[in-house]
Amino acid sequence: MSDASEAGFELDPRLARDTVFVADWKLCRVLLMDDAQFPWLVLVPRRAHLVELDDLANADQISLLGEINRAMALLRWRVPCDKLNVGALGNIVNQLHVHVVARRRHDAAWPGPVWGHAPAHRYVPEARDRLVALLTREATGEGAAPTRLPHRSDDG
Amino acid sequence: MSDASEAGFELDPRLARDTVFVADWKLCRVLLMDDAQFPWLVLVPRRAHLVELDDLANADQISLLGEINRAMALLRWRVPCDKLNVGALGNIVNQLHVHVVARRRHDAAWPGPVWGHAPAHRYVPEARDRLVALLTREATGEGAAPTRLPHRSDDG
Repeated sequence: MSDASEAGFELDPRLARDTVFVADWKLCRVLLMDDAQFPWLVLVPRRAHLVELDDLANADQISLLGEINRAMALLRWRVPCDKLNVGALGNIVNQLHVHVVARRRHDAAWPGPVWGHAPAHRYVPEARDRLVALLTREATGEGAAPTRLPHRSDDG
Repeated sequence: MSDASEAGFELDPRLARDTVFVADWKLCRVLLMDDAQFPWLVLVPRRAHLVELDDLANADQISLLGEINRAMALLRWRVPCDKLNVGALGNIVNQLHVHVVARRRHDAAWPGPVWGHAPAHRYVPEARDRLVALLTREATGEGAAPTRLPHRSDDG
């Protein structure tokens, strides 16, 4: 998967600590935030020294957009979800990363944002591994999610 | 500016109440959030019945991406800025809209998100009109911002 454009890319240590690896897509490393309160993916473009969205080359921005769509479809397909939140903040972790979060109307932070919400509740390992396996199956091509799904899935 | 693809588009009343009109770009209505704590643009695609980012047709997603870049460059050019935050949440206002917010390391919510932060402090009208005029000059083509600028502008 690795190529010259990835030279010098290293995952920020805080992102590494707070998340679990799901997959490497074409552009992004896909991570699951280790917080059982919110099904929450983090997309990190595997490019060195990026901070802002518009640090990405144009073609990479288009790839990122495609992978955001894919992450949205994946969450919608795999977990209960009333709304998706997408954000690139980077106030704490400098390395460019995009959050894609499945929200429920009764979740712990609703209707506020998940960022800045009280400390993470780490998954129990079995639940985390099960969710990662479910996400990874799609991410590696097995049982691929449709690219587009109805918004409010009832099958979660 | 209006065309058939805009049929049925109406700005959400809460967005209308909380913001000031800046411009209509090709896809989006550009609004300034009426909160003097944060220089904060809101981009609303002028399409009816959109909720999620991926409700947008593919070509419109690419346009939105371009307009997010443009809003980032505009803020960076016109206001002091250490970091830009970009987000599409929609937990409160259902209509698809994208926030582009200029953050400072000493602003009222730093390093947390602006969403869910305590009530807005409305601009004094003169300051608001001055900022809108500054933004509008770029937005309508006069003194157009470079499409790409260094991240930490010192000339704000």
